[in-house]
Amino acid sequence: MSEFDLIQRYFTRATPSAVLGVGDDAALLQVGEGMQLAVSTDMLVSGTHFFADADPFLLGHKALAVNLSDLAAMGATPRWATLALSLPEVNELWLEKFSRGFFSLADRYGVELVGGDTTRGALNLSITIMGEVPSGSALRRDGAQVGDDIWVSGAPGEAAMALAHLQGRIVLPEAVLNDCLTHLHQPQPRVELGLALRGIAHSAIDVSDGLLADLGHILGCSRVGAEVFVGRVLTRQVVHENVGLKPDLHWEDVRQQCILAGGDDYELCFTAPVAQRASIEKIAAELNLPLTRVGQILAGSGCVVKDAAGKVMNIKEQGYDHFA
Amino acid sequence: MSEFDLIQRYFTRATPSAVLGVGDDAALLQVGEGMQLAVSTDMLVSGTHFFADADPFLLGHKALAVNLSDLAAMGATPRWATLALSLPEVNELWLEKFSRGFFSLADRYGVELVGGDTTRGALNLSITIMGEVPSGSALRRDGAQVGDDIWVSGAPGEAAMALAHLQGRIVLPEAVLNDCLTHLHQPQPRVELGLALRGIAHSAIDVSDGLLADLGHILGCSRVGAEVFVGRVLTRQVVHENVGLKPDLHWEDVRQQCILAGGDDYELCFTAPVAQRASIEKIAAELNLPLTRVGQILAGSGCVVKDAAGKVMNIKEQGYDHFA
Repeated sequence: MSEFDLIQRYFTRATPSAVLGVGDDAALLQVGEGMQLAVSTDMLVSGTHFFADADPFLLGHKALAVNLSDLAAMGATPRWATLALSLPEVNELWLEKFSRGFFSLADRYGVELVGGDTTRGALNLSITIMGEVPSGSALRRDGAQVGDDIWVSGAPGEAAMALAHLQGRIVLPEAVLNDCLTHLHQPQPRVELGLALRGIAHSAIDVSDGLLADLGHILGCSRVGAEVFVGRVLTRQVVHENVGLKPDLHWEDVRQQCILAGGDDYELCFTAPVAQRASIEKIAAELNLPLTRVGQILAGSGCVVKDAAGKVMNIKEQGYDHFA
Repeated sequence: MSEFDLIQRYFTRATPSAVLGVGDDAALLQVGEGMQLAVSTDMLVSGTHFFADADPFLLGHKALAVNLSDLAAMGATPRWATLALSLPEVNELWLEKFSRGFFSLADRYGVELVGGDTTRGALNLSITIMGEVPSGSALRRDGAQVGDDIWVSGAPGEAAMALAHLQGRIVLPEAVLNDCLTHLHQPQPRVELGLALRGIAHSAIDVSDGLLADLGHILGCSRVGAEVFVGRVLTRQVVHENVGLKPDLHWEDVRQQCILAGGDDYELCFTAPVAQRASIEKIAAELNLPLTRVGQILAGSGCVVKDAAGKVMNIKEQGYDHFA
């Protein structure tokens, strides 16, 4: 199969809202009046196989999900994406599953794949996503204000708990494990939440590197401090009661580390004025998604974390950094 | 050095024309009235080192150049780019040179780096570029009309000649080799030409996979045929006269193969009505860039290639395909 056949077979879908989609040097997108946006992606790649054993359907889902999560954290409406894909070989079964995973999520949010690049090399994929947001309405990192509540969606830390299980540090009961593994391998981008928070939240970020690390970006950009109560963060009681541990580990330590420093959940962390509490609880009910107040924005800098007993914790590990 | 330090040090420049540039979940771009475009890039990567011995300055240049070339082929004004970069380690000298190569070209065309992603893995980089073009003015692949002249810029094939030299198939004299190596390693995107051809050319493509392969895309999309006279394509006489060859090779065969099937030059191939010849020659003079008429668009399909003697050639190798 040639490169062009490959693109035609696996990555060419109708793009009715684009002026010009896959098949030219760049995609043409009508954004405002009178001007179009041309978008193109290229890739240079090297290396050897790495995701050989990753489920390609889940990989296609997750690759788009982590990008959609960025748009969710901006309060943007997803519109278009480009995909740069480096492959060691043409494996049609792999491509079929990967593209199904990608497009099943893309279709849910009306995202159109409008361009990209394929090349031979170590397995690597890079997506660029584009969305729209009315001027001035985006949820930025620099908008947190002293007195804001700090909120998180869902149960951040469950992806890290799945990882701790896979690494043999804890043993989760099967039903809980399956839920946590889904959070790890098939995260759900909080697009609807991001859209609902426009005009309500002062700032937002998606939790990809860990709650404290990502909240830290809001604090740094907004030049404010915070206190966070780890006991308020939602976790499943069944995990608490049924978890198996290595003898040298304490569950509360593991739980707190997963919540505070575990990445990969792609929940949203956002701040909003106290006056918006009722509106946010209404959004939680409408989306059937837990939204939990976990702290406050304070004057100053840095984040104080308090344990379930209200005692200030000494935090070492704040999150994941590729190059630390 | 942390990931954030790395981004701050090497990839954060002022982005005055963006509403929001590097440092949030997505960049915010004001494109039309009342709406902004949010743009974000993520990367998933695997593998081991590959470009270890590539000059990082030239790599930074070329990675952006091949993207700019896509915009040039659309007649779009370059505006913004995102860069996804996977690195096996933080090599500050490499990063410094790479970013200098990238930004020296970006600055020349006013391209602002507005986002991206860095991750650890086999060396891999993926750029998404964005540009603007007035509605209806883009140079597409599907606009060629019967009777159009076929034009190419520069001297396509010289990058392939450098490669043939590096592979030991031919020996180029040093001065010529240096020019050809520059075309291979530091191609110049024909942005100004693309902009000048708006309203003049009927169709355009950049020559990345080889002249016949890329012209073939215009023919396929436009549902037309063509004849191309390989003898008309510009080549340097000094190459012709001074080139060294392995005993079993004929220079005219090598030259024709480099011209017709050699990629990596990033010249533009475009079609335009006969009535535009004077305008195009004026553009060539203004840009100090040779523009050569190499054939005509015909009714039908496929491309007939005629050699210097006007005889129809039997073409085997049409260009580069990553997966053929």
